[in-house]
Amino acid sequence: MEKTGFVSEEILDKIRVGKEYVAAKYGFRNHWYPALFSKDIAEDEIKTVELLGEKILLKRIDGKVYGIKDQCIHKGVPLSRKPECYTKGTISCWYHGFTFRFEDGLLCDIVGVDKSNIIGKRHVKTYPVQEAKGLVFVFVGDEGYEVPDLSRDVPPKFLDEDMAIRGMAREIKSNWRVGAENGFDSTHIFIHKDSILIENNDLALPLGLVPTGRGAFKVQKEEDGPKGVFDLFEPETIRPVFQGTVEGEEVRMGTPEGKNMLPHNISIWLPGVLRVDPWPDPKLTQFEWYVPIDGKRHLYLQTIGCRVNSAEEEAQFDKEFEERWKPVALEGFNDDDIWAREAAEDFYADDTGWLREQLFEPDGNIIEWRKLASKYNRGIQTPEDIK
Amino acid sequence: MEKTGFVSEEILDKIRVGKEYVAAKYGFRNHWYPALFSKDIAEDEIKTVELLGEKILLKRIDGKVYGIKDQCIHKGVPLSRKPECYTKGTISCWYHGFTFRFEDGLLCDIVGVDKSNIIGKRHVKTYPVQEAKGLVFVFVGDEGYEVPDLSRDVPPKFLDEDMAIRGMAREIKSNWRVGAENGFDSTHIFIHKDSILIENNDLALPLGLVPTGRGAFKVQKEEDGPKGVFDLFEPETIRPVFQGTVEGEEVRMGTPEGKNMLPHNISIWLPGVLRVDPWPDPKLTQFEWYVPIDGKRHLYLQTIGCRVNSAEEEAQFDKEFEERWKPVALEGFNDDDIWAREAAEDFYADDTGWLREQLFEPDGNIIEWRKLASKYNRGIQTPEDIK
Amino acid sequence: MEKTGFVSEEILDKIRVGKEYVAAKYGFRNHWYPALFSKDIAEDEIKTVELLGEKILLKRIDGKVYGIKDQCIHKGVPLSRKPECYTKGTISCWYHGFTFRFEDGLLCDIVGVDKSNIIGKRHVKTYPVQEAKGLVFVFVGDEGYEVPDLSRDVPPKFLDEDMAIRGMAREIKSNWRVGAENGFDSTHIFIHKDSILIENNDLALPLGLVPTGRGAFKVQKEEDGPKGVFDLFEPETIRPVFQGTVEGEEVRMGTPEGKNMLPHNISIWLPGVLRVDPWPDPKLTQFEWYVPIDGKRHLYLQTIGCRVNSAEEEAQFDKEFEERWKPVALEGFNDDDIWAREAAEDFYADDTGWLREQLFEPDGNIIEWRKLASKYNRGIQTPEDIK
Repeated sequence: MEKTGFVSEEILDKIRVGKEYVAAKYGFRNHWYPALFSKDIAEDEIKTVELLGEKILLKRIDGKVYGIKDQCIHKGVPLSRKPECYTKGTISCWYHGFTFRFEDGLLCDIVGVDKSNIIGKRHVKTYPVQEAKGLVFVFVGDEGYEVPDLSRDVPPKFLDEDMAIRGMAREIKSNWRVGAENGFDSTHIFIHKDSILIENNDLALPLGLVPTGRGAFKVQKEEDGPKGVFDLFEPETIRPVFQGTVEGEEVRMGTPEGKNMLPHNISIWLPGVLRVDPWPDPKLTQFEWYVPIDGKRHLYLQTIGCRVNSAEEEAQFDKEFEERWKPVALEGFNDDDIWAREAAEDFYADDTGWLREQLFEPDGNIIEWRKLASKYNRGIQTPEDIK
Repeated sequence: MEKTGFVSEEILDKIRVGKEYVAAKYGFRNHWYPALFSKDIAEDEIKTVELLGEKILLKRIDGKVYGIKDQCIHKGVPLSRKPECYTKGTISCWYHGFTFRFEDGLLCDIVGVDKSNIIGKRHVKTYPVQEAKGLVFVFVGDEGYEVPDLSRDVPPKFLDEDMAIRGMAREIKSNWRVGAENGFDSTHIFIHKDSILIENNDLALPLGLVPTGRGAFKVQKEEDGPKGVFDLFEPETIRPVFQGTVEGEEVRMGTPEGKNMLPHNISIWLPGVLRVDPWPDPKLTQFEWYVPIDGKRHLYLQTIGCRVNSAEEEAQFDKEFEERWKPVALEGFNDDDIWAREAAEDFYADDTGWLREQLFEPDGNIIEWRKLASKYNRGIQTPEDIK
Repeated sequence: MEKTGFVSEEILDKIRVGKEYVAAKYGFRNHWYPALFSKDIAEDEIKTVELLGEKILLKRIDGKVYGIKDQCIHKGVPLSRKPECYTKGTISCWYHGFTFRFEDGLLCDIVGVDKSNIIGKRHVKTYPVQEAKGLVFVFVGDEGYEVPDLSRDVPPKFLDEDMAIRGMAREIKSNWRVGAENGFDSTHIFIHKDSILIENNDLALPLGLVPTGRGAFKVQKEEDGPKGVFDLFEPETIRPVFQGTVEGEEVRMGTPEGKNMLPHNISIWLPGVLRVDPWPDPKLTQFEWYVPIDGKRHLYLQTIGCRVNSAEEEAQFDKEFEERWKPVALEGFNDDDIWAREAAEDFYADDTGWLREQLFEPDGNIIEWRKLASKYNRGIQTPEDIK
């Protein structure tokens, strides 16, 4: 467990825009985060995950997944070190037999100690869990916090009934914000200029995207819905640039000749999830999460959505996903994003990068995302929260 | 050398019981600690050990072991990096020839520099060394401290003339206090419920041991003797529990049917040594030390004692030790204790575990040990001491 | 990048002599340092080096080597992670196309973004580079600092026209000051007492060198020249000792019988370069640099100089260097210095060694070096400088 590494007040005092966002090195509390795929936790199976620096033990019981803090209340050992479940709904600590109910976290017994004043009174922390679209979402929040509907923490369209979702997940060695900004950053398209996806999918890919002035993005902040920022890819707001020049000389061209000019619509949402629509194909949408593991790592959970009207269509999408979109888009194309984030991590790792970076016009949407996240988050993860 | 990692005043201020004990992350000064086995340092041989964060060079000269600080006074290099002993009673630093006497640490010469005002005046720190029962004990203390008799720092019976001792030692990745508390903790017996020792030695082993109310332990604090805490395994004070239940259902049984109901008598002593009597057999006693190496590691030095009346009996015990007790008890049974300590280390590593733990009734003896150690120790290791 | 590890004010306040030198854990700013050998960076080739904690990208363009900071001004990524040079005189950042001129660091274009207010206005930091004697020297200093002539930062004789230079370089795991002091320290000769160089080169090598009283060194501090300290190897100032005794007994002899009594003249110069003259042979001179990489490592750049009057003589020296002096002197002899420095590092690593060391008479020249370096350096590297 990484216990240091939060942003100092000295640095935060110097942040002029997006202060809460910069403070959220370990992520935003009281939000839903996808932790793993439903298929990866079978009935009776136990899995451990780390979210926002909190170590969580998950178990599927009678179909439903439950989450508790992976730390015995007695002397703090991880329950997962040697899980002992003597009844379906409980787990007993391997060390002194402290037994907790998954449903409410109650210390219901201590195996081997038949009487104690603490039995029936103390609790281990529980985490709300919900499954949707083949993902296991965990609510990482304060005890007693009124848990919001999942639909407020995912991008629009993701939960649509006819949307089939497939995906994969990887641990990335960078802060989650470095991941999120790489994804939403419209000029980072420059790193993809030689991607195998371009030819493979007949893409028209510019070298850069330049805002023409004001109005290159819009903010969505309806009270009961998810909060996000959209890029506005309209000719009058954002202009694609295919010709690269250095000191007056043309040095490099983008790929203007592809028939698919994608995407038209990129947006980023609290607590840290991107929607690229359509992508990587006119009929598909990519949704990807940058889930904080701790201050230095994030889970890059990538999914592609496809509207389907039958089990047959879904099976067809499943096959295409495995054979084409996973290797060519989620791996081939996005692998470039991964090394870019890891290369950018060092500059932000000691938190001074937020003061030293020199942003330029196309970063306007990033600034807007920092403002939105600072304003609409439900809490900032603190050192106390990860103990 | 771990130079940070001492407990902060901020945390110590919040400790209500056993404050000095919590402060002693690197151990208690001015006590005797076993460093290695006598058989492992032959005549003329040099060995280095780390005790309480202090690096010490030991050498056996004419049968007697001497100890000096393994750091030249001049520019601080380890003498052991390339030991050069030009006379039996001295060691010369490989770097500039500074030569120290083992007996009193005096800088008696500088090889290659025939005159200097510091020759005959400066000293390297020396450590009193004493051998007993096949162990090399080192006194880690302040210069000028009146060295107490070894008998005041070992459990009663250990030095008895007819007590033959055999043992082994391992480095464990946990603080010494986490080791000590695991050993003395009466309900940790739960982790041993499937040990090979049970069947191998026909043991009756409960799942837990529950104090019935006041009076489950007693303190021994005679002025001239060792200071320790005893568990009182009497039916009216501590009750064995063989049946494990969860929410009213019997889920697991201990082992009530063995003919050997052991041990009757467990005690822990300053500066951090446990006596389990009898154990692992009615005729044997286990003595085990948790010697601080630094703030994160301890030397787990395990010994078994057997009363013998002849060289033949001792040879017989030696054979039994090697063939049975070492593999079945010191390894088989205690290996569970080792992983338990290492699993518990993370919670206490940043010192906040002492504030976050939630103790219960059976931990009363642990509390008593913390109080006793806080009251009767002869000093607390500080950052200055390990430089 | 090591961003912590500078010396605390608490420690500096206790330093009585050479305070600025002790503060210069990362080296002295505004000086010339050799970074690599000219032969190791070909036309068009890019190399990265780390000097005083600063990461620098070097490129040879039309014969001349240029240096810029290896960090894009935008979001701080290393340009060297995937160098993209679309024109001879520029480098473009792989991430967003920011393009910098090597000559003056100007952001002259952003590939893929045809218009931005920052183009033509912002700069990446540049480093003056100069080649001499087959070495690439980099000036690590403040922007706007008036760059001094290289001759003020190398020992006398090094730049002499008839001086041919050959050498090698290695990264050493110790602070540069520990390296420098090992080199200039006259009694460290003790570690070389069994060197293969002694027999191989018919050397007379004492076990120690003892100053006889005042006057064992002199300081050179002419205003326009390099600043250094000389040992004065005169019979009346420094006396060689061949006989090693311990408590009155002769225990070890140096090597008095060699016909080459070397060296006569050892001196150390700002910013951290030693001259040993003659060495390792009556006709040769060794010049060696201890270049700070960061606070924990230095580049040990060793060279040997030989006066030559023709290409033929230089070719002869080149052959001798490769076949003899490199393996026997720079490796064989100096390898002992390397492990000595690494063994001494731990004591000084947390900066308390400067308070705990116990110097003696022969260290007078070291003290003088610390004073000179404190007085004549052009600046001390700070945490701000390495961001």
